[in-house]
Amino acid sequence: MIYLPKPERLSHSANCIFSPHNLPILRVRPGEIVQVETYDAFGDQLTPDFDLKKLLESGKEVYDNPVTGPIYIEGAEPGDTLAVDIIDIKIREFGLAAISPGVGALDGWLSTSPAVTKFLKIENGTIHYRTDSAKDLTFPAKPFLGVVGVSPPLESISTVTPFQHGGNMDVADVCPGNRLFLPVGVKGGLFCVGDVHASQGDGEICGNAVEVSAQVTFKFDILKNKTIRWPRIESNDEIMTVCSSKPLEDAARCAFRELIRWLDEYGISTNDAYILLSLAARARIAQIVDPLYTVVAKIAKEIIA
Amino acid sequence: MIYLPKPERLSHSANCIFSPHNLPILRVRPGEIVQVETYDAFGDQLTPDFDLKKLLESGKEVYDNPVTGPIYIEGAEPGDTLAVDIIDIKIREFGLAAISPGVGALDGWLSTSPAVTKFLKIENGTIHYRTDSAKDLTFPAKPFLGVVGVSPPLESISTVTPFQHGGNMDVADVCPGNRLFLPVGVKGGLFCVGDVHASQGDGEICGNAVEVSAQVTFKFDILKNKTIRWPRIESNDEIMTVCSSKPLEDAARCAFRELIRWLDEYGISTNDAYILLSLAARARIAQIVDPLYTVVAKIAKEIIA
Amino acid sequence: MIYLPKPERLSHSANCIFSPHNLPILRVRPGEIVQVETYDAFGDQLTPDFDLKKLLESGKEVYDNPVTGPIYIEGAEPGDTLAVDIIDIKIREFGLAAISPGVGALDGWLSTSPAVTKFLKIENGTIHYRTDSAKDLTFPAKPFLGVVGVSPPLESISTVTPFQHGGNMDVADVCPGNRLFLPVGVKGGLFCVGDVHASQGDGEICGNAVEVSAQVTFKFDILKNKTIRWPRIESNDEIMTVCSSKPLEDAARCAFRELIRWLDEYGISTNDAYILLSLAARARIAQIVDPLYTVVAKIAKEIIA
Amino acid sequence: MIYLPKPERLSHSANCIFSPHNLPILRVRPGEIVQVETYDAFGDQLTPDFDLKKLLESGKEVYDNPVTGPIYIEGAEPGDTLAVDIIDIKIREFGLAAISPGVGALDGWLSTSPAVTKFLKIENGTIHYRTDSAKDLTFPAKPFLGVVGVSPPLESISTVTPFQHGGNMDVADVCPGNRLFLPVGVKGGLFCVGDVHASQGDGEICGNAVEVSAQVTFKFDILKNKTIRWPRIESNDEIMTVCSSKPLEDAARCAFRELIRWLDEYGISTNDAYILLSLAARARIAQIVDPLYTVVAKIAKEIIA
Repeated sequence: MIYLPKPERLSHSANCIFSPHNLPILRVRPGEIVQVETYDAFGDQLTPDFDLKKLLESGKEVYDNPVTGPIYIEGAEPGDTLAVDIIDIKIREFGLAAISPGVGALDGWLSTSPAVTKFLKIENGTIHYRTDSAKDLTFPAKPFLGVVGVSPPLESISTVTPFQHGGNMDVADVCPGNRLFLPVGVKGGLFCVGDVHASQGDGEICGNAVEVSAQVTFKFDILKNKTIRWPRIESNDEIMTVCSSKPLEDAARCAFRELIRWLDEYGISTNDAYILLSLAARARIAQIVDPLYTVVAKIAKEIIA
Repeated sequence: MIYLPKPERLSHSANCIFSPHNLPILRVRPGEIVQVETYDAFGDQLTPDFDLKKLLESGKEVYDNPVTGPIYIEGAEPGDTLAVDIIDIKIREFGLAAISPGVGALDGWLSTSPAVTKFLKIENGTIHYRTDSAKDLTFPAKPFLGVVGVSPPLESISTVTPFQHGGNMDVADVCPGNRLFLPVGVKGGLFCVGDVHASQGDGEICGNAVEVSAQVTFKFDILKNKTIRWPRIESNDEIMTVCSSKPLEDAARCAFRELIRWLDEYGISTNDAYILLSLAARARIAQIVDPLYTVVAKIAKEIIA
Repeated sequence: MIYLPKPERLSHSANCIFSPHNLPILRVRPGEIVQVETYDAFGDQLTPDFDLKKLLESGKEVYDNPVTGPIYIEGAEPGDTLAVDIIDIKIREFGLAAISPGVGALDGWLSTSPAVTKFLKIENGTIHYRTDSAKDLTFPAKPFLGVVGVSPPLESISTVTPFQHGGNMDVADVCPGNRLFLPVGVKGGLFCVGDVHASQGDGEICGNAVEVSAQVTFKFDILKNKTIRWPRIESNDEIMTVCSSKPLEDAARCAFRELIRWLDEYGISTNDAYILLSLAARARIAQIVDPLYTVVAKIAKEIIA
Repeated sequence: MIYLPKPERLSHSANCIFSPHNLPILRVRPGEIVQVETYDAFGDQLTPDFDLKKLLESGKEVYDNPVTGPIYIEGAEPGDTLAVDIIDIKIREFGLAAISPGVGALDGWLSTSPAVTKFLKIENGTIHYRTDSAKDLTFPAKPFLGVVGVSPPLESISTVTPFQHGGNMDVADVCPGNRLFLPVGVKGGLFCVGDVHASQGDGEICGNAVEVSAQVTFKFDILKNKTIRWPRIESNDEIMTVCSSKPLEDAARCAFRELIRWLDEYGISTNDAYILLSLAARARIAQIVDPLYTVVAKIAKEIIA
């Protein structure tokens, strides 16, 4: 097993961007188990004594979704698909969520200034949300990777943006037990990961999930000469496609179109796939708060097998 | 129990519109059990020998989502909320789905002309989809009401459009066991229902679900002086809000805003509700094929109770 | 010349909706000159002593864009096109504009509550806007019809909404000297008009133009068996199509599509029209504040003649 | 005067991206006159014997909107504004337009495959479009810069995409006599230019304007410590703001918001600016075919002076 600690110091150009210009800090071979430490979405900067309001007032650098990486996967080349098995995600014992000024799907309808920070205890797989009226609301922790991807072929894309390379997709299905597929854009892939969420609502409407630092365990595979346009996910029960666009219906259309392409591999014609998905698909609004919005289209394997 | 058969003959002005101008064909009191027969989305016109292509070529009138009603509920007045308990939905033994020229979320990406019609056998709660390659795909029937609503206060709205009055929402959560809440716009409410779906994928991307005629059993209640802006649904496990708008993100924003309003009745502040939904809400893309798109926002009762 | 005064009293169901259910208050023959008095967008209710804030607080009925009509045009039938020559618009000597709570394209970015009302002097064709800092800004008056249309074939549509029947299009090209074409939806057309603007910015971003009452002079023609889908406009210099949809790009796409259809009548093929418009068309964002947004696509006649 | 020829050979990483990683090929001082040669949008690859269809079939590299640059402007630093006076644009004697497979605002409604290429003669300032039916349509040449911008601060952005740094804005107001303002993102600014259009329709609906190679003459100025968020333009008659987003209404909202910010410099309050623009602003739909859509908001100087 190969262990990759967090970067000692964060910088925007090294940790807040998916870029062909960033040099790999680790090289791994397909099949090797890799354990990676990740920062939380706020770069581990917030504490009960130094909340988001204080951070924003302090004039200190703010790192949005800093990632650990890039990891160079031996043998990965443009035109291949990188398969990422998410083996395990270990999260810390508290999470963070915040209302940030000018951020979120309902900014304008409700006040987002000044910043509000919530610290949530995470214990035995349960998240505790203490409301303003002192009520304690609980819900289960289901950790997943908020930001994960490879380098785009040409552009450099901020870690706040999701696109064909992956990035800030905020898809709860990128979780232990599932396999993520990413389109390799440059030699070695240049895989990066960060922004683990202990739980997230569909839409991630205030702009945050339960933000945690974490230790993530992976295994990589390379599907040679298998070209995909957008990220895909496979779980025990479902196959899924992930697209990010605006407006949200275009993300949905794109995800369904990719799923129809995938169903072709199951011997289902375009027309049949189109009708079948209209009758039996599932979809998830991953988020409507990033520069592009993300939708996951899904179909149960037991229907198409 | 009161029984309401299908209208003998369909007309656009009587059956394809939610309107304050349509005269009630039945009056019921809150608490009475009502059983209503509904046409399928194609007005029961299609048969294996007379499919959608033939219907479109025939020059015959096409009735989109014809409804049965209006039903006048005694005591319902503008400003009240109509609660509709969906007790049972009995569906026929085959369903219909079609690709219609110029219709659907992927029109333009794939060919939608000429029309393609699929007849699906429904047996013991299982739907059978026979593909072009003779593969038989199956999935469970979960019937729900595609079109259900009351008269708007002033406008008359086609049964192809969803809006604040309900209408063509295509929300799979409007199913037996659940309670639907609608904002009363005119005296008596003028409730109509139709377009039952035996199963539907999120997004309803080709423009159809498994379309069936059905027999639906209801009970109505009136919540006096309880005013809601958009439809709401309550199941055993969740509370849900339903909004229809364009682009799709605006439907989502609206549904989450309404859910925050509802959470206020649970003693949860706007800020807490905003963050909580960002961490733990669920959402459903009901459809992206009607004149306005529909999103359902949901939160589990066990979190907020 | 036939003279139609303002309705004595306003009501929502008679004056705030385009509907096949409203009875005509005047019948005219094609070719007759008709002079119509119109209310301003606030139903002539606002005065310097009773501004929008006071109106909203008063609990009095608010009439949005009340129209005068319907006018029944002899011989107009579904499938025909109604041509409306706008001969003259006489406006009063002051205009009104307001910021209304929750209204406008930038609601959320800036505060829209409480309501702000501006009274603008109109003198010799010049509009005077007195700023908070007492600066007097001036610009020319160019009156046009904000709301104009016929009854939809089936639905009843509020006077705040633009659609295929016309309605609240807020298109500055609907002005004296130009010819407006509307698709007849019901027998007699049932033409209504109101909401004259002395001037309007593209987008009408705060939700108002320079709102005035007015006296409008028309002449109607009927183009028998000439069917159009959306309103069209012809000026001395340009042909124009008007579509209303959401998101705004869909309104633009629709307007260009209709313009390509129109260019077919000039013997220009679909491909040529598509490229030509890409090289030489003009477009106007009419408004982005109503329930659907409106775009006008235009091409100069001297190019295509 | 400094002369900068076209790059001898094109590459994607050097000529099809705005990037902080690209090394300057020229250094100039503010005030110097610079003359730059630019490729057309197809990299000067198309000829009557080798049209777009042949290029796409040939397997040769396709360069979309290749730019000349970067030019390093001495003294420009992040937080400054770069002012670019466009002194002159000389264009060649023919232009190109094409329908490209899968490209354009009406793709799906009409067929875009196979590619169609049009060669247009440009003579004495007049463009000649020869239709399929051999009709010769003419319209005036009004050359402007389709792609112009500086490096983003962190990301690298393809020359097909417009954003805060400028890029593929396709704004006809970026023409001789006007001054363009760009937000400096990195030291030296790293200015690039290309994709000159001899004429373009609002919306650029098929994805092309009249594409030409050109010789462009500039002068640069630096406004120290003057920070803008989005490109601005000043002509003799108007001030204008340019924003690119999706959906199109968000580009419009952004452009109007920036124009309200600019009007603050004229002593006009936010509320007054909001209402004034609603009464008297102009807007241009620059394009609805690139990855983000572009709107220009404008106000006449004589109103606000």
